[in-house]
Amino acid sequence: MIIGLIGFGKVSKTLFNLIRSENITFITSKEGRSAETIEDIENSGITILETFRDVANKSDILISATSPKSALDVAKTYGRYAKGIYLDLNNISPDTTFEIDKCVDNLVDGAIIGKIDSNNPVLYVSGKKADELLFLSEFLQTNKISDDVGDVAILKMLRSVYTKSVSALLIESSQIAQKYGLEDEFFEVLSITEGEDFKEKSISRITNTLNNSKRKSEELEEIIDYFDDSDLTMVKAALKKLNR
Amino acid sequence: MIIGLIGFGKVSKTLFNLIRSENITFITSKEGRSAETIEDIENSGITILETFRDVANKSDILISATSPKSALDVAKTYGRYAKGIYLDLNNISPDTTFEIDKCVDNLVDGAIIGKIDSNNPVLYVSGKKADELLFLSEFLQTNKISDDVGDVAILKMLRSVYTKSVSALLIESSQIAQKYGLEDEFFEVLSITEGEDFKEKSISRITNTLNNSKRKSEELEEIIDYFDDSDLTMVKAALKKLNR
Repeated sequence: MIIGLIGFGKVSKTLFNLIRSENITFITSKEGRSAETIEDIENSGITILETFRDVANKSDILISATSPKSALDVAKTYGRYAKGIYLDLNNISPDTTFEIDKCVDNLVDGAIIGKIDSNNPVLYVSGKKADELLFLSEFLQTNKISDDVGDVAILKMLRSVYTKSVSALLIESSQIAQKYGLEDEFFEVLSITEGEDFKEKSISRITNTLNNSKRKSEELEEIIDYFDDSDLTMVKAALKKLNR
Repeated sequence: MIIGLIGFGKVSKTLFNLIRSENITFITSKEGRSAETIEDIENSGITILETFRDVANKSDILISATSPKSALDVAKTYGRYAKGIYLDLNNISPDTTFEIDKCVDNLVDGAIIGKIDSNNPVLYVSGKKADELLFLSEFLQTNKISDDVGDVAILKMLRSVYTKSVSALLIESSQIAQKYGLEDEFFEVLSITEGEDFKEKSISRITNTLNNSKRKSEELEEIIDYFDDSDLTMVKAALKKLNR
């Protein structure tokens, strides 16, 4: 079996390292890549083809893991050459997923949840051909959501509804605690019911959100836009909070 | 040492069962109690005095654990007879705590965080005499917050800011997930990062909040009232959510 990689960032490299089998060959190309990525590709030992068109053509599974912005372009450019499964692992919206579905025959939308470099990342997949990817569980836990392309993208958004709003709430509540000189005690008290790593996890969420508030706001706007016929009281408050 | 109990509900009974020492005698009274409570008191083996005035008078530590509504009355009625520490464990606001402080000489405000009948409840205490309660760590973990009466009450409210808003957020996000037929998957995906017990804990929070939405709303209103000079975007959204 041949797995082709478009994009050679963290996701692709991790998959290349996790999925080791005599029966699987990974291929990619250096075509149009940055000097840094080319060095990464050369050092990895992966099989290198001349063009991404060749990669798409020869792959049983073609994985697109580039960036949310280029996902649709990649699909438009190489999707038609892919004869096997086209697995999109970019962090894209349901609408972009549906757009990509129009340019590609056997789209499976996927996402890796959990830290990709941790011990327990889980690969979620949806689409008619998703079943054919379940053999990957030998290398990393792979769960099928449904036959419907787009369900993984929706699930990612649902996850974001929760995590991004929790981050906004942590900013709000820890700031009030700080005002009363009870910030450490606030985290300590909550760790009794929320788990021992509550403080560490919360501070990482707060920092990450404050350092990327523009991007987080944009992502919240996308969520509000997509789920606009639902009651979004908390998500809208989170967006308001981040814009302050 | 003599510990007096006003109120013989879950908190009092648990403390009576946890704090077992040859040097400590627990006392209470049946005065004015319900038939059910009197039976509980008689079955427990605790030392029974004629009146709560006697109990207050004889106690080195007098514990008030009745109900938020009667906490101030209890303090007004028996506080003046208490010669030792007056430990208030009712779930009261900072303002009620300050009112009680006016009727009582050696007030310590306290709260038990974590399930009282679990293995790891923690007793938090604040007040000038809080140090004198740290010996209780022999029986259940006891942490002093500060010398300032009211700090534990504030800390409880800060905790509620987080937990009650999270409950509102769980209601919102799980309802959207349900709409897309992805409720189980929503909980599953989040349990990867939020902990294995995420689903169970979340459903218990959602049920508890929906079944007690009037009381939860009132508690959120108290919080908003108390912290009214802070940015309460998320808490106010949680209140709005609960009132729907």
